[in-house]
Amino acid sequence: MSEPVNRPVRVALLGCGTVGTEVVRLLEDQAADLAARVGAPVELAGIAVRRPNRHSGVRQELLTTDSAALVARDDVDVVVEVVGGIEPARSLLLQAIKSGKSVVTANKALLAEDGATLAEAADAAGVDLYYEASVAGAIPLLRPLRESLAGDRITRVAGIVNGTTNFILSAMAASGAGYADALEEATRLGYAEADPTADVDGYDAASKAAILATIAFHTRVTAADVYCEGIRRVTAADIAAADGLGCAIKLLAICERVPGTGGAPESVSARVYPAMIPKTHPLAGVDEAFNAVFVEADAAGQLMFYGQGAGGAPTASAILGDLVAVARNRVGGGRGPRETAYASLPVRPIGDVSTRYHVSLEVADRAGVLSAVAGEFARRGVSIAAVRQTGGGEDAPVQPESAPAGNARLVVVTHGAPDSALHETVEALAELDVVLGVESVLRVEGLGRAVSALGA
Amino acid sequence: MSEPVNRPVRVALLGCGTVGTEVVRLLEDQAADLAARVGAPVELAGIAVRRPNRHSGVRQELLTTDSAALVARDDVDVVVEVVGGIEPARSLLLQAIKSGKSVVTANKALLAEDGATLAEAADAAGVDLYYEASVAGAIPLLRPLRESLAGDRITRVAGIVNGTTNFILSAMAASGAGYADALEEATRLGYAEADPTADVDGYDAASKAAILATIAFHTRVTAADVYCEGIRRVTAADIAAADGLGCAIKLLAICERVPGTGGAPESVSARVYPAMIPKTHPLAGVDEAFNAVFVEADAAGQLMFYGQGAGGAPTASAILGDLVAVARNRVGGGRGPRETAYASLPVRPIGDVSTRYHVSLEVADRAGVLSAVAGEFARRGVSIAAVRQTGGGEDAPVQPESAPAGNARLVVVTHGAPDSALHETVEALAELDVVLGVESVLRVEGLGRAVSALGA
Repeated sequence: MSEPVNRPVRVALLGCGTVGTEVVRLLEDQAADLAARVGAPVELAGIAVRRPNRHSGVRQELLTTDSAALVARDDVDVVVEVVGGIEPARSLLLQAIKSGKSVVTANKALLAEDGATLAEAADAAGVDLYYEASVAGAIPLLRPLRESLAGDRITRVAGIVNGTTNFILSAMAASGAGYADALEEATRLGYAEADPTADVDGYDAASKAAILATIAFHTRVTAADVYCEGIRRVTAADIAAADGLGCAIKLLAICERVPGTGGAPESVSARVYPAMIPKTHPLAGVDEAFNAVFVEADAAGQLMFYGQGAGGAPTASAILGDLVAVARNRVGGGRGPRETAYASLPVRPIGDVSTRYHVSLEVADRAGVLSAVAGEFARRGVSIAAVRQTGGGEDAPVQPESAPAGNARLVVVTHGAPDSALHETVEALAELDVVLGVESVLRVEGLGRAVSALGA
Repeated sequence: MSEPVNRPVRVALLGCGTVGTEVVRLLEDQAADLAARVGAPVELAGIAVRRPNRHSGVRQELLTTDSAALVARDDVDVVVEVVGGIEPARSLLLQAIKSGKSVVTANKALLAEDGATLAEAADAAGVDLYYEASVAGAIPLLRPLRESLAGDRITRVAGIVNGTTNFILSAMAASGAGYADALEEATRLGYAEADPTADVDGYDAASKAAILATIAFHTRVTAADVYCEGIRRVTAADIAAADGLGCAIKLLAICERVPGTGGAPESVSARVYPAMIPKTHPLAGVDEAFNAVFVEADAAGQLMFYGQGAGGAPTASAILGDLVAVARNRVGGGRGPRETAYASLPVRPIGDVSTRYHVSLEVADRAGVLSAVAGEFARRGVSIAAVRQTGGGEDAPVQPESAPAGNARLVVVTHGAPDSALHETVEALAELDVVLGVESVLRVEGLGRAVSALGA
């Protein structure tokens, strides 16, 4: 192994929790390999933490509580940020960029809220800004979207990008448990944080959707542009109902290019919600805390990326990949490619996006019910794909004229229609005399072209 | 969309068959997008073909039969090669590189035979050499290995990288057809070439394995280093036998890092052969002409990449991605990262690699047969995992002492052992009096850590 002749690339690490600790370990364990790959040693210049006495595993002389002073140091070339949150991360990274330092970050919330500011600052300063670890952990996804597919036209990026919610939904499906019990298990096993809001309410996935849509469609999409529903209201009954239809329920992040029609311009849609997907689709088989993302492009067709979406070591792997790229650029004197935002496509509101609904109603079991319910769908131009009535222990296709009196459950699955029309239909159904309750409303996603291969 | 202000990046295309035609189409259809992404227009300077009158679909003034003159032109910045084969491709690409032009190529045979020469020339000239399209078509694989995982330690790359043989094996499994019939169908449908040798004998997959191993292990591996068996000898009976064991047969390319032990240095293994894999493994569900590759790394864990591994448009997508990267570097004045070969690990011969065998024997059905057969395995230190005897229409676990006289089939599945010991055992078995014939020998691959998720 020939010795690199270049001066070391020096790294300031902001944060040293689960991910930061793994970054330190990989930098030390692989020092010789990293030096050979970069063409210069990659050295830790310092680590900013809140409580130095809690980090006995790392070299104590590296620790500091003064993040700003560490970022400002002249002997720092690259700042790696694994603290998370908007502030002080944004100020520190902007300070680093403005002083000519390249940045590697895993901070999805910051990128989804204000990635444009960081990107513009990096352009102005001529430094690198990489963030592969912000989406889907170790799975190489942002670099393939930004570079490998740079000559193609991406039409859709859709998948499972939050491990916590996938663990909860998988546990519910496997055991029949309710949401609360499954969340408790996830927390006990370390898959959910003490405050699980960002995960279970979909905000984490929405941040990732914003980042994915921005890169895929060359358009700035922020977290505020992403329609977002979490999994708190998914019940054991919903999952059983999905199962009966040959479907699983997954929390999906969906980023789509929507063709322009009738004078309306081409637009993009970015949304996060739990949805029924066919069990024959490979995403239905992605269990526990794994992530998987499908990408569709005009020339490439359908691609799939699968792996561990979170955890210290997988996230650190993604950070180290970015760090090697940034360090190579420092040594070679170049700058890596970045996403572009030239297309500036409008973001389509959820109400205008075509979706499909699965609606489960408690209804009076008497003649005319189906007619009343179907009328509300028809009135809003929503076409019904399938309808099924269950009640009195029986499970049979609806026969409205011959049904006995009493209560029953009516399940309706629609064809694609504007989400606003579907939403309004459900609100109108709730007002009908014959509808005793709206038990559940779930979207149904076919996820584009059928994937004949993969997944038994 | 703001107009790029830089001078155009001009491209010479060598070859205009299925892939080249798609490259031309994408360059034209997406001209505005490509210009915005690159920061300068990307223009075709010329197309070298053998018979200009066969390319009525492209602008005639671009066509030339003089590849060398096209490559030498001063107004060409990048050469894209989709001709294939060793010569004249190598000479033309070296000529291009030496005159300061960057190169994008899909030529797996050339890269696997002599990638080092091209890489050294590119280093010396300070130009880019990209070849994402050479392995697994549209699936972003080389860039993730080279860049996204540059800070990790890759331990294995294994998968299905040849669509023709996967189509044939899928067809055999689906219909029970023999190899010859399935090959004929593949040829008729355009999945196999008139001369299918490179695909069915595994050479195409071996070239790809050499390229993957080179990047993954920072070690130059050539096609000659890759042990290679094709699928010609896979029979309908083999596939039925695999099916009975809950397995599918796939042509696998396997690149592994083999830990050093007892003074022996760490090494790499690269090999291609048909193998039985459990149907529960996601690779078993990859049908038709699709490709899928598993990557294992210390920190990242297990990753999977899936998509279309061949075809004009998917391959052109990968070429365009490289072309955008090269063009961006032209405009920005940098140079992209390239694979490194610093590790220079030795390549382990197939005989020293630990594999598992599935051996099917026609034996005399009498007492003592199992003892004689088992003795040959034991003599070479090979441990048997399972054994099963079938015969006379029955299918029962071996009961050697009580079996009636006549012929029977004995199936043995081993634990892991050096391939040479397994090979020698099979040769010795063929010499035994009680063995009437060796019906089939197939390797069995568990493909590392179990993948609990993905694949129903």
